[in-house]
Amino acid sequence: MVHRVLSTELAGHVGETVRLAGWVHRRRLLKSVAFLILRDRAGLAQVVVSRPADRVRLERLPEETVVEVTGRTVGNPAAPGGVEVVEAYWEPLSEPAAAAPFELYRPHLSATLPTLLDHAPVALRHPRRRAVFELSAAAVAGFRSSLDALGFTEVATPKIVASATESGANVFGVDYFGRRGFLAQSPQFYKQTMVGVFERVYEVGPVFRAEPHDTARHLAEYVSLDAELGFVADHHDVMAVLRDVVAGMLAALTDRAGAALELLELVPPEVPDRIPEVHFADAVRMVGAALGQDLSNEPDLAPEHERWLGEWARREYGSEFLFVTGYPMRKRPFYTHPQPDRPEYSNSFDLLFRGLELVTGGQRLHRHGDYLAALAARGESPEAYASYLETFAAGMPPHGGFAIGLERFLARLTGAANVREVTLFPRDLHRLAP
Amino acid sequence: MVHRVLSTELAGHVGETVRLAGWVHRRRLLKSVAFLILRDRAGLAQVVVSRPADRVRLERLPEETVVEVTGRTVGNPAAPGGVEVVEAYWEPLSEPAAAAPFELYRPHLSATLPTLLDHAPVALRHPRRRAVFELSAAAVAGFRSSLDALGFTEVATPKIVASATESGANVFGVDYFGRRGFLAQSPQFYKQTMVGVFERVYEVGPVFRAEPHDTARHLAEYVSLDAELGFVADHHDVMAVLRDVVAGMLAALTDRAGAALELLELVPPEVPDRIPEVHFADAVRMVGAALGQDLSNEPDLAPEHERWLGEWARREYGSEFLFVTGYPMRKRPFYTHPQPDRPEYSNSFDLLFRGLELVTGGQRLHRHGDYLAALAARGESPEAYASYLETFAAGMPPHGGFAIGLERFLARLTGAANVREVTLFPRDLHRLAP
Repeated sequence: MVHRVLSTELAGHVGETVRLAGWVHRRRLLKSVAFLILRDRAGLAQVVVSRPADRVRLERLPEETVVEVTGRTVGNPAAPGGVEVVEAYWEPLSEPAAAAPFELYRPHLSATLPTLLDHAPVALRHPRRRAVFELSAAAVAGFRSSLDALGFTEVATPKIVASATESGANVFGVDYFGRRGFLAQSPQFYKQTMVGVFERVYEVGPVFRAEPHDTARHLAEYVSLDAELGFVADHHDVMAVLRDVVAGMLAALTDRAGAALELLELVPPEVPDRIPEVHFADAVRMVGAALGQDLSNEPDLAPEHERWLGEWARREYGSEFLFVTGYPMRKRPFYTHPQPDRPEYSNSFDLLFRGLELVTGGQRLHRHGDYLAALAARGESPEAYASYLETFAAGMPPHGGFAIGLERFLARLTGAANVREVTLFPRDLHRLAP
Repeated sequence: MVHRVLSTELAGHVGETVRLAGWVHRRRLLKSVAFLILRDRAGLAQVVVSRPADRVRLERLPEETVVEVTGRTVGNPAAPGGVEVVEAYWEPLSEPAAAAPFELYRPHLSATLPTLLDHAPVALRHPRRRAVFELSAAAVAGFRSSLDALGFTEVATPKIVASATESGANVFGVDYFGRRGFLAQSPQFYKQTMVGVFERVYEVGPVFRAEPHDTARHLAEYVSLDAELGFVADHHDVMAVLRDVVAGMLAALTDRAGAALELLELVPPEVPDRIPEVHFADAVRMVGAALGQDLSNEPDLAPEHERWLGEWARREYGSEFLFVTGYPMRKRPFYTHPQPDRPEYSNSFDLLFRGLELVTGGQRLHRHGDYLAALAARGESPEAYASYLETFAAGMPPHGGFAIGLERFLARLTGAANVREVTLFPRDLHRLAP
């Protein structure tokens, strides 16, 4: 049998008999000629149907039916890729496909988001939907290769855990052999523990938040890109790694998913060699003055403040990225390292992209005694953290890290209004299937 | 400040003043001289302590304390890597470390497995424990790069699902916003669905089995390396991909974790260009004759049968790997494709490595009507599988795939008697922490 070629490889086979395989993406039944547009994993191919008997067969071949096509490749400047297949013979590999709830062959899917999500197995086949997840795979590959090059080791830590990581709220309970278990809200404790082993670690995996708010930004399960590194002077060493990782993720989009970028008409933003930075205290002062608000007692930035800062960074530095550092300790988790010279602030940061928070990170406490004090100050018992605390009792270097929400990164990049648009099978307050 | 060098980089800095950082792996207090053996992410470095005052300081520096050392590098053939650091000054970066429950500086950890697991944050720092997880990271990288090279796309599918994938048994329940959810036992349904989108997909992620048996082989949570591909003629196309993936994983061990292999005195096995294959019916006939057992009605192979087959493959083909194909349909899940000419058997396979099952896979059903018939034959209602079935109604090519259990792969490779030895933080019937 003739070896299968992909749609994008056709141009290299002009004059040859080829075999294509894929889905009937579209039928175009014109007066004098008909076309079968075939979709495979690489793109689209045009198959010319001239004989009346074949046309009758084509009319009975619903879109999305899987077919294998054998024919001769010829050049045609009007066809996609400049080539088409003529004198074609085809055979279905599936039953005739059922009618889809929307027209997959249109350049844009016109259905509502709930309909697209309800029928995700079909909707994801649309080239524009598919392109988003090609970008996703490329971004994750860029995350890994950037960290591999910096001497990081990948780890896999458990997702069923004995206690809540971040706070007792928003945690899913699991019936664990008759005991109470929880789904990990982050790999935070484990990645710190693994700094004691490998110094530099990363993990790509699911995290779970029983988020009771029904918003365009929240998911009950998402992919967290986590990194943690030891032997840092402070959070600036962590920020330098994050800068290289984000640049590596964006470069990977071009390297590994150029066609998807083109289809979605996206150009990855430039990451400056040094991302500008503003301290939280200066940020609230500037934003307060500009917006005529008294923010002197605010422990965090509101979305409109982040937007203002995003515009300010573009204006002042020509940068779409901005680090805000030094968030007040009272809004950060107990393992956060304070800013040594202003202990009401922390050695933490957010990375804003186009005025929206993209990444959170910072330096962590590393001395056992500091952990005991931090837990005591919050009225928490050290017993609940015994394994975690063992890590610090056994000697830990100054360290820090960050977590990038993959879906949030994709939403920012593609301009998606709802994070569900960039999630294969989203989980939220209402949605547990498909 | 002098730039930090890693222990393995010292040899390139002879005669220079360097800065090292890491953990006090061991102190050797000899009569005339003392040594501080420093451990960092790359290896060990020997620091010579000559001055009496420094020796007193060293005596007060417990193992595992984190230190930063500045000194001059000199050659010494007796030192690890042929170099050592003299005229050293050091400063602790952590508090003095608490005494570990076992001696990390011994070549082998002598504690029992439960003790090692209870104190995993410390035990994992031992070079031999750490090496296992360097191999793990390398194997996963090899899995991904092999599939990337074959045109596969990485996906991330949900781990909280609405219904059990493989069977109703052994599934963990989750309280999902007041509804009943489950932890995914495999990404099987989703990876098949994604074949409809990308043709070739893989996923590396946790899977969950509420395994009530307390054995050396079972975990309640493990890492599954899943792949699935469309447009196959039958399961042999899947096996050919699996062969390349296993070879790629083993090659990655040498490429990315050579030092770990050396430390553990492991040589990755050779994968033949074509792994030998035996049909289940022939396998039971041969094994039955050899062992004097009547296996004609056995639907599966027992461990002793697999061991015999492993020896047979080595004897007959000089191969440590063997494919057993065609397992009886009655022992395989409902989505399994039957063997067309002998429909009581299936187009499925197991890959045995040294007489132990390493991977399971096969061709799946791809026609919507076949799914309805398979579910009906098992007395299952199609409603429970509505989203999954939508994939097939929408047109699917012949396809198949496989799943490699990462921990099982590592156990086979390292000869670990218990899969918990090759799991960072194992989860089982009794263990939910650390």
